[in-house]
Amino acid sequence: MKVLTVLCHPRRASLTAALAGRFRSGLEAAGHAGELADLYAEKFDPVLLPPDEPDWADQRKRYSDAVLAEQARIERHEAITLVFPVWWWSMPAMLKGWIDRVWNRGWAYDGGKLALTRGLLLGVAAGSARSYEGKGYGPAMEAQLVEGMLRFCGVPEARLELFHDVLDDDPIRGAALERAERLGREFAV
Amino acid sequence: MKVLTVLCHPRRASLTAALAGRFRSGLEAAGHAGELADLYAEKFDPVLLPPDEPDWADQRKRYSDAVLAEQARIERHEAITLVFPVWWWSMPAMLKGWIDRVWNRGWAYDGGKLALTRGLLLGVAAGSARSYEGKGYGPAMEAQLVEGMLRFCGVPEARLELFHDVLDDDPIRGAALERAERLGREFAV
Repeated sequence: MKVLTVLCHPRRASLTAALAGRFRSGLEAAGHAGELADLYAEKFDPVLLPPDEPDWADQRKRYSDAVLAEQARIERHEAITLVFPVWWWSMPAMLKGWIDRVWNRGWAYDGGKLALTRGLLLGVAAGSARSYEGKGYGPAMEAQLVEGMLRFCGVPEARLELFHDVLDDDPIRGAALERAERLGREFAV
Repeated sequence: MKVLTVLCHPRRASLTAALAGRFRSGLEAAGHAGELADLYAEKFDPVLLPPDEPDWADQRKRYSDAVLAEQARIERHEAITLVFPVWWWSMPAMLKGWIDRVWNRGWAYDGGKLALTRGLLLGVAAGSARSYEGKGYGPAMEAQLVEGMLRFCGVPEARLELFHDVLDDDPIRGAALERAERLGREFAV
């Protein structure tokens, strides 16, 4: 299976980037392939301007070349994984803007759907699982990202995996990396 | 009361911008004052880079000048209102990045709190109230934005007001504008 891995972190020497790398090692070990989209390294511009606003009167609006290139990259794959630090119980602006601009009307929803069979979100979080449940942040991320984004755009197998407490200590980070590799190996089992 | 209105929309000729205008007229009619922060017009850069990453070993990290200027603008006010179109059941990347960068550690949380007594979010949505409840998008926005952002940063009076079905027809849009003006007039009643 061809899996696009979208990485969003300001530094390559980050746990998030390492986690994306281990996930991809796991994918490869299981015989999968696919590109890495490193949004910060590629200097993707997350600011949606009028050329990429949906036209509610025209589902077939042609978007900007930058957006068409991102759509083409997704179309070269059968599945997608987004790897990001959880900032404010959601995605960083860079990744949010990639969704805002690229997953646009007529292509990702209304008249077109993502031709992806699986979507996996890997969120790297400072907070504990307990705090995410207690405050409802976990269910909120499920509603917005899994249901409201992946399933809304027709991705049938959609899932969020949170890596908690990652600021605490090295054993926790080591376990997170191992878990990421396992998620890669077992991606399409 | 001095109320900062933060506007996020790619076009000034948008319902969102008109709604921010009517909200501010209402504020003024009630004797309030305050600045307008038009993030798109000001070309705010929502991409958080390492100079604005929180330093988990140092709560007193000094952030970039652009961020310090935004923090100073907030500090000139006693309350805040964010006016934005709801994209993917959340804020546009531009506004998310303004939060990511500006509401930073040691100033907005951990060692500092926002010195704002009220926070109001005005979200302009294509979807119906029914769809937002049915899919859990409304409660998700409450958890992430009202609880996870405003209250998390110490804003005691925090509220989200959604304007639904705004693509439907002119009477709905007219009613939304009137409601925005009323929210301004009754802001601190």
